[in-house]
Amino acid sequence: MTAPAPAPAPRLTRRSLLGGAAATAGAAALGTAAAPPAFAAADRTVDVAVVGGGLAGLTAARDLVAGGRSVAVLEARDRVGGRVVNLALANGGFTEGGGEFVGPTQDRVKALADSLGVATFTTYNTGKNLLYKDGTRTPYATDGLLGSVPPVDAAGLANAAIVQSELDSMAAQVPVDAPWTAAKAAEWDKQTFESWLNANAVVPSAKFLLDVACTSIFSAQPRELSLLYVLFYIAAAGNESTPGTLERLTDTAGGAQESRFVGGSQQVPLKLAATLGDRVVLNAPVRSVTRSGGSYSVAADGVTVHASRVVVALPPPLAARIAFDPLLPAARDQLAQRLPMGSIGKAIAVYDTPFWRADGLNGQVVSDSGAVRSTFDNSPPDGSYGALMGFIEADEMRAYDAASVADIKAAVLKDYVNYFGSRAASPTSFVVQRWDDEGFSRGGPVAFAPPGVLTAYGPALRAPVDGIHWAGTETSTYWNGFMDGAVRSGERVAKEVLATL
Amino acid sequence: MTAPAPAPAPRLTRRSLLGGAAATAGAAALGTAAAPPAFAAADRTVDVAVVGGGLAGLTAARDLVAGGRSVAVLEARDRVGGRVVNLALANGGFTEGGGEFVGPTQDRVKALADSLGVATFTTYNTGKNLLYKDGTRTPYATDGLLGSVPPVDAAGLANAAIVQSELDSMAAQVPVDAPWTAAKAAEWDKQTFESWLNANAVVPSAKFLLDVACTSIFSAQPRELSLLYVLFYIAAAGNESTPGTLERLTDTAGGAQESRFVGGSQQVPLKLAATLGDRVVLNAPVRSVTRSGGSYSVAADGVTVHASRVVVALPPPLAARIAFDPLLPAARDQLAQRLPMGSIGKAIAVYDTPFWRADGLNGQVVSDSGAVRSTFDNSPPDGSYGALMGFIEADEMRAYDAASVADIKAAVLKDYVNYFGSRAASPTSFVVQRWDDEGFSRGGPVAFAPPGVLTAYGPALRAPVDGIHWAGTETSTYWNGFMDGAVRSGERVAKEVLATL
Repeated sequence: MTAPAPAPAPRLTRRSLLGGAAATAGAAALGTAAAPPAFAAADRTVDVAVVGGGLAGLTAARDLVAGGRSVAVLEARDRVGGRVVNLALANGGFTEGGGEFVGPTQDRVKALADSLGVATFTTYNTGKNLLYKDGTRTPYATDGLLGSVPPVDAAGLANAAIVQSELDSMAAQVPVDAPWTAAKAAEWDKQTFESWLNANAVVPSAKFLLDVACTSIFSAQPRELSLLYVLFYIAAAGNESTPGTLERLTDTAGGAQESRFVGGSQQVPLKLAATLGDRVVLNAPVRSVTRSGGSYSVAADGVTVHASRVVVALPPPLAARIAFDPLLPAARDQLAQRLPMGSIGKAIAVYDTPFWRADGLNGQVVSDSGAVRSTFDNSPPDGSYGALMGFIEADEMRAYDAASVADIKAAVLKDYVNYFGSRAASPTSFVVQRWDDEGFSRGGPVAFAPPGVLTAYGPALRAPVDGIHWAGTETSTYWNGFMDGAVRSGERVAKEVLATL
Repeated sequence: MTAPAPAPAPRLTRRSLLGGAAATAGAAALGTAAAPPAFAAADRTVDVAVVGGGLAGLTAARDLVAGGRSVAVLEARDRVGGRVVNLALANGGFTEGGGEFVGPTQDRVKALADSLGVATFTTYNTGKNLLYKDGTRTPYATDGLLGSVPPVDAAGLANAAIVQSELDSMAAQVPVDAPWTAAKAAEWDKQTFESWLNANAVVPSAKFLLDVACTSIFSAQPRELSLLYVLFYIAAAGNESTPGTLERLTDTAGGAQESRFVGGSQQVPLKLAATLGDRVVLNAPVRSVTRSGGSYSVAADGVTVHASRVVVALPPPLAARIAFDPLLPAARDQLAQRLPMGSIGKAIAVYDTPFWRADGLNGQVVSDSGAVRSTFDNSPPDGSYGALMGFIEADEMRAYDAASVADIKAAVLKDYVNYFGSRAASPTSFVVQRWDDEGFSRGGPVAFAPPGVLTAYGPALRAPVDGIHWAGTETSTYWNGFMDGAVRSGERVAKEVLATL
C-alpha cells in the first residue's frame, strides 16, 4: 500500500487513454483499449476514491485535485465517458453512441468543454422537419406560428398547447433541489404521467404528441413515470436564472438538441481524463466498498483503493450492485431499487451524402410508428458524408430485446425509407448502440422515478452516508439526465467532499 | 475440482445446522451459526447450483435430488430460510421475524411441512378485533354480518363492499401465469392502485380500509403499485381450483393468517435443509455466475460451484446484484431494476401473559395511526406467555429508517397501549426485525411491480436464460409473495430443470 505523491499527474497522450480502436460486437468503439489498465493488481491510498469515470466522476476528480486532494478514479469499462461514447465508422469517421447534444442553459458542460478546448457546432437544422403519422409524411417548417410543434389537426394542436402550458406551470411549482417538498407533491407523485395525460391530453393527436415527447425525453412510456418526476425533470431543464420548460427539453433550436461537440461528445471526458493522468484506472469495476475505522477500502477487479472518502458516480441502480459494508441505510438501498434505467438504443445509418438535405429536409422526424420514431441529421459538421441517427426507445427498444443487429437494421432502414425515401435503404454502414445491453449502464438515458418514489425516498438521493457521497446526473438539480447534469453533480459533490476534509 | 458422490447425504442433526443461538444486533437469532460453513474454500462440481437457501431454493434442491441430480445450495446468510426466521426471546421462547402465517389453498407449503413433520396450529382468534380510528377504540366481532370488515360508518362499509367485489371481479380476469395477457392488462397496468382507489373508494372510511389492506398485504402504499399487479396478487391468492380473493389475503379465519407452524415457521426450511445435509453451504453469498462453454461457475465467498444448470432463488432485485457473464438479456435485467422490495418491519412485544385475552380481545387491530397499524396475538400455542406482533409497513417503516431500536420500541409500545391498555407499556422483552436493513433481503415481504412493468417485462420473470432458471416466491403463479409461493416456485423450477437434463 503506497501513497502516490500529490504532484501533478504526468500528462497522458490522448492515444494512451484511447488505446487502439478496438472492434466490439456490432460496433467498433473509439476509446476502447485492449491494453491492460494503467495500474493493476495493486493497492493505492488516496484521499478520495471516485467510482465511475463518466462526466460526473471525472469532474469530481478534477475539482478534488484542484482542491489539493489525491484521487483515484475507478472506471469499470476500458474507456472513460460512461453514457457518452464515440463509435468508429467504417468510413474512417465516427458517430456518437450516447449523449451528444448540448443546448441553452447547459452552462456547466459547456464551460467544461470550453476549458478543454472542445468546441461546439450547431445541430443541422436547415429545412423542414417531418411528421410521419398514419402512414402519411408531412414536411413542416418550425419557424412558423406553431414553432416546433408537428402539424397535427387543429383540435390536437390546441389541446397540446394547453397541456404543455399546464405542465410548465405545474413544473414551476416544483423546487428542483427537493421536488418532494412541492405543495402538491403528494398529489402529483401518486399517479403516473399516463393517468394525468389521459385526463388532460384528451384529443388523440395531442396525446400522440405528448407520448412522443415522453419517450424521446425519458426512453420510458408515460405509464412508467411519476407525474411529479416528469414535472421535476421539466423544472430541471433550465438553470439558476432560467426556469425549465418542456419545450427546452424537446427543441432543437433553442433547446437541448441545439448543438453538438466538435470531434464528438466523448472528447469532453477523454480530454478531462487526460488531465487526470494515471489517477484514472480503466477496466476496474468496483465490487465492494468496505469501511474500516475512518477509512474505506474500495475493491475493484485488479486494484483496491484506500481512501477516507468515496464518491459514487454511477446511476443509482448500478450503485446498488456494489457490496457495501456496512450496509447502506434502508432508504438509500430502497431508493436504488426504485430508480430503473430507461430503455434506449441509437441507430445510425451512414450514407455517402446527406441526401435528404437536397430535398429540403433537416433530417428530423416525429413518427407514430416504426422502431425509430425520432431522428436527427448526425452528419459531421462539414457534411462530407451523411448520417441519420434514430432513437429506439421504451416499448420499441424492448420489442427488439432478443433481435439480432440485422433484424434491427432491417426495421430501422424500413423506417428511414418511409421518412426519407428509397435512398435511405442503402447505407454504407450501420451502427446500433443498445444501452440496455451495456453491462455498466443497463439502460439509459437516465434512471427515472415511478410513482411514490420521490416523496418516499427523495432525500436519500444526495444525502452522504458517512464518508460516501453520491454523484451522477441522477443527483443533479438542473439538467438531470443530461451531460450538463453529470458535470453539475461532479462539481457539487467535490465541494461537498472538500468541505469535510 | 471433485464431483461429490450421488449417494444420499449424511443426515445432519438439527443442532449442526442451527449452531448455537448467536446474538445479533438488536435480536438474537435462532438458526444463526457462528461456526464456519460446512464446506468452504473449495470447489464443487454438481449438476445444479442453487443460489439461495430460502424455501424456494431448498424445495428446488429437494426435488432435483429426488430426480437423481447432484446439487449445491449456496446461501449467503449463516442460516437457511431467507425471509423466514425464528428469533430467540429472552424468556427462552422464540418468535417469528419473517413469514409466519399459512392458510387455506396454500397447499404446497402445507404439504412440505407435513412431509417434514412440522404441524400447524390455529392463529389465536378468540374474542373481538379492534378498530382504532380517529383516536377511538372500537372492539368488534368478526362472526357477524360484516365478517372481518372493521365497523366504519355505513357509507364506508357499503363503498368498501362494492370496491372489494369489483377488485375480485377484475382479478378473476387476470391469468395468474401471464397477467400481461389479461384483456384489460394495458388499461390496468398504466395506473397506480391509488389512482383507481381515488376513483372508486370515494368514501373516506372506505379508502382507509383499502389503504390498510394494501399496506398490510404489500408493505407498500397504493401509489407505489400497478393496479394490474394488485389484481394479479389477488388472483394468485388461491389455487388451481379456487379463485383468489382479496378477503383470502386479509382474513385470519379462512384466510392467509389462519394458522401458524408449531415451533415457528423456520422449522420448515431448517428441517428441509437437514434432509439436504452438506449440499447446503452457509455463509456463501454468490458474487458471480460465469458461463464457460456448456457449464457455469458460480462463485461465492469461500466456494465456487461448477454446474451445468443454475437456479437463482432470490428476490429479483437481489439477483441483479450478481455479476453475470455473459450479461443477462436486457429484458431480464431491466425487469430486476423495476421490482423493488416493500418496506417492512415486525415488532414483537413479549408479556408474562396474553393479558388482552381476558379483556375479550384476540389481539388483532386495524388502526389509522401509529407506527404499527396491524397487529396479531403471537403468543405460543399454549399461551404460556403473551406476545403482541405488529407490522411496521411502507410509509411507517420508512419514517423510522434512521431511528434507533429504542425509538421504535417507544413508538410501538405507545401504539400497543392505545390498543390494549396500560399493561402493554411494560413488556418483558421487545424484538424488532427490520427487513429493509437485512443485506440479503433489503425489504419485504415481496418484490412488487409499479405501473408498466408487468406488461413490458412480465415474460422475463420465469423465462430461463440458457442454463439459468429462476425461482423465488416472486415467480409463483399462486400465493406470490408467500411461503407457499416460494415452495411452488421451487417445485416448478425443479421440473423445469430436470426436463432439460
